[in-house]
Amino acid sequence: MATIQDVARYANVGAATVSRVLSGNGYVKDETRQKVEAAIKALDYTPNAMARNLFFRKSGIVAVIVPEVSHPFFAEFVNSAEAALCEKGYQTMICNTYYEKNFELRYLEMLKQQRVDGIIFGGHTLDTSHFEEIFRPIVALDRDMGNHIPCVAADHIEGGRMAAEELIKAGCRNVVQFGGRYGKYKVSTPSNMRHSVFEQIMEEHGIPCYSHMMKWNSINIGSYRIAVKEALDICPDMDGAFGTDWIMMALRQALMERGRRVPEDVKLIAYDGTSAMSLVTPSITYIAQPIVELAQQAVRLVVDLIEGRSDGHENVILPVVLHRGESTKR
Amino acid sequence: MATIQDVARYANVGAATVSRVLSGNGYVKDETRQKVEAAIKALDYTPNAMARNLFFRKSGIVAVIVPEVSHPFFAEFVNSAEAALCEKGYQTMICNTYYEKNFELRYLEMLKQQRVDGIIFGGHTLDTSHFEEIFRPIVALDRDMGNHIPCVAADHIEGGRMAAEELIKAGCRNVVQFGGRYGKYKVSTPSNMRHSVFEQIMEEHGIPCYSHMMKWNSINIGSYRIAVKEALDICPDMDGAFGTDWIMMALRQALMERGRRVPEDVKLIAYDGTSAMSLVTPSITYIAQPIVELAQQAVRLVVDLIEGRSDGHENVILPVVLHRGESTKR
Repeated sequence: MATIQDVARYANVGAATVSRVLSGNGYVKDETRQKVEAAIKALDYTPNAMARNLFFRKSGIVAVIVPEVSHPFFAEFVNSAEAALCEKGYQTMICNTYYEKNFELRYLEMLKQQRVDGIIFGGHTLDTSHFEEIFRPIVALDRDMGNHIPCVAADHIEGGRMAAEELIKAGCRNVVQFGGRYGKYKVSTPSNMRHSVFEQIMEEHGIPCYSHMMKWNSINIGSYRIAVKEALDICPDMDGAFGTDWIMMALRQALMERGRRVPEDVKLIAYDGTSAMSLVTPSITYIAQPIVELAQQAVRLVVDLIEGRSDGHENVILPVVLHRGESTKR
Repeated sequence: MATIQDVARYANVGAATVSRVLSGNGYVKDETRQKVEAAIKALDYTPNAMARNLFFRKSGIVAVIVPEVSHPFFAEFVNSAEAALCEKGYQTMICNTYYEKNFELRYLEMLKQQRVDGIIFGGHTLDTSHFEEIFRPIVALDRDMGNHIPCVAADHIEGGRMAAEELIKAGCRNVVQFGGRYGKYKVSTPSNMRHSVFEQIMEEHGIPCYSHMMKWNSINIGSYRIAVKEALDICPDMDGAFGTDWIMMALRQALMERGRRVPEDVKLIAYDGTSAMSLVTPSITYIAQPIVELAQQAVRLVVDLIEGRSDGHENVILPVVLHRGESTKR
C-alpha cells in the first residue's frame, strides 16, 4: 500500500505539500496540486477513508429524511433506498424528523458542510423557501420543493380516482376519506391530490363525501385511533371509507366495536399497500404505491446529481395498482 | 470565525504545521502537536466538519446494522435508536445486511477505519471469531458476540414460558412453533432460547410440540407463507401455534383458507408485538418485546463505550409483556 512518502516522491514534492493538498488547508500552487492529485490516483493512495473523502470533497453518504422510519411506508422506502444506495457505493444516513423543523434544517446544514453528499427529502415541515438557495444534490419524495429540485411520487391522481370508483361500484352512498392536508405547516405534496380527486368524483356522482383532515404528520397509531373515532362520531352512517393502510385497520377495529360489519355495512379501501396488507385477514382492498421503485428512482436521481450526470430538472411519477380484497365486496 | 492562519499565529507555528496536525499525515513533534491542538480548541477552529472529525478522530456516526429495516421489529428498533442517538449528538447510519456476510464485514472495516464511531450490531451472519480482535465500540442486539461485547436482549426465556403456558391454559394439546435456529450460519442468539423453553414446557406437560425451524434470516413475507404451508402439511391437526407477528398473521390466513377457525380450532400466540398488532382485527394474543427500551439501552451502551465511560462488560435483559387477544380465547 502506498504511503504519503510514495506519493510525495512520485509527484516530486515534499510530504507536507501532499498533506496540504489532502487537508485542503494551506496554499498549494494549482500545478503542484494537479501533480499531487495525479500521484494519489496513480498510486491509489488511501491515507484513511475520512482523509480520502476529505480530499475528494465527498463523504460517500446520502441522508434519507423521513418523518418516522417505523411507519411501514417509510420503513419500506428506506429499506429499498439503502439497498439501491449500497449498490451504487453510498452509505445511508437516516433521520426521523419527528415533525420538528429544526431537525430538517440541521440536515440541510450537513449538506452545505459536505458531511453528506446528497439528501433524499421525505421530510414534511420545511417550506420551499429553505431550498431556494441550495444548489447541492436534493431529491424530493412526494414533495413540491421548487422547480430546481426533482420530485419522485406515485400517481396519486390515478390513486384517488381508483379509490373513488371502487367505492362507487361497491354501492357506497355516504363516504369518508382521511387525509392530512391542514395543520401547522402549509406543505404542498402530490399525495394530497388523491383527496381532491376523490372528493371531486364523489361530487360528480352526487355522493356525500366527508374529508376528515388530520393534523399534518399525524402518522402514528395513537392519532389514527383518535381520527377514526372523530370521523365515526361525525359520520356514524358512513358506508365507505378511504385512507392509508393503518387508518383503515384502525377504522375496521372501531367499526367492529360499534357493531358495524365490513364489508356488509361499510366498505374500506386502503392506500399505500405496505407489505403487511397482504397478511391482513379478512383482507382489505388496497391501492399499492410502488415503494421499491420510488426508492430506486429517488436514489438514481440523487446519485446522478452527486456525480454530475443531471441538472435536476426531472420529475418521476410512477403508477399505482389496485389489489381487490374482501373489504369492498358488495 | 477563526482561520488556519489564526490557529498558526496562536500556536506560534506555520500554517503547514497546523495542516499536518489536522490531516494526521507528516511528522509533527509531540510538543508542537499539543500547542496546535490547544490553539484549535481555544479558537474553536472548524475548517469544515469532516476535517474537524478527522482531527478529533471521530465521525459522529453510529452504524445500526440489521437484517432488514423494513421488517417491523427492526423498523421500530431503528426508529427508536435514531431518536436516542440524535439526542446524544450522533447521526445514525443504517445498513441492511440482506443476510450477506460481506456487508457486515464491510461495516466492521468502517469501524476500524474510524468512519463510524460505533456499531449497534443486529446483524445475523458473522460468527464471533470476527469480533475477537475488535476492541472498538460495538453493542450486540440479541446476539452472543463474545464476553467483551455487551448484549441487549428481551427476556426470551420468560417469553417462551409465557407463550407455552398461555397455549396450555387455552386447552391446546398439539402445538407448533416457528423459529429460525438452523441454516447456513451457526449463530448464537438469546432469542432462540424462547424455543427451547417452549419445547421443554410442552414436553413437561406431555403435549406434542413440532418445532418448524426456518432457514436462519428468513424474515420476509414470502418465506413466512412457505413456512406456514409446510407446517400445516406436516401438522394438519395443530390446535395451537407460536411464532413472530407476521408468521402468526400468515398462519391465520392459511388456516382460514383451509377452513380452520381461530380461536375455535387453532389458538395463536405471536411474538414481538410490533405496533401494528394492536390494529389487527380480530385481535391476536401477543408477547411484546420492549423495542423502544431495547434501542435506548443499546444506544446508551454504545455511546458510553465511545465516550470512554464503560469497559463493555454489561449485558442488559429487559422484560416482555403478554397482551391477551381473541386468538387464545377458549
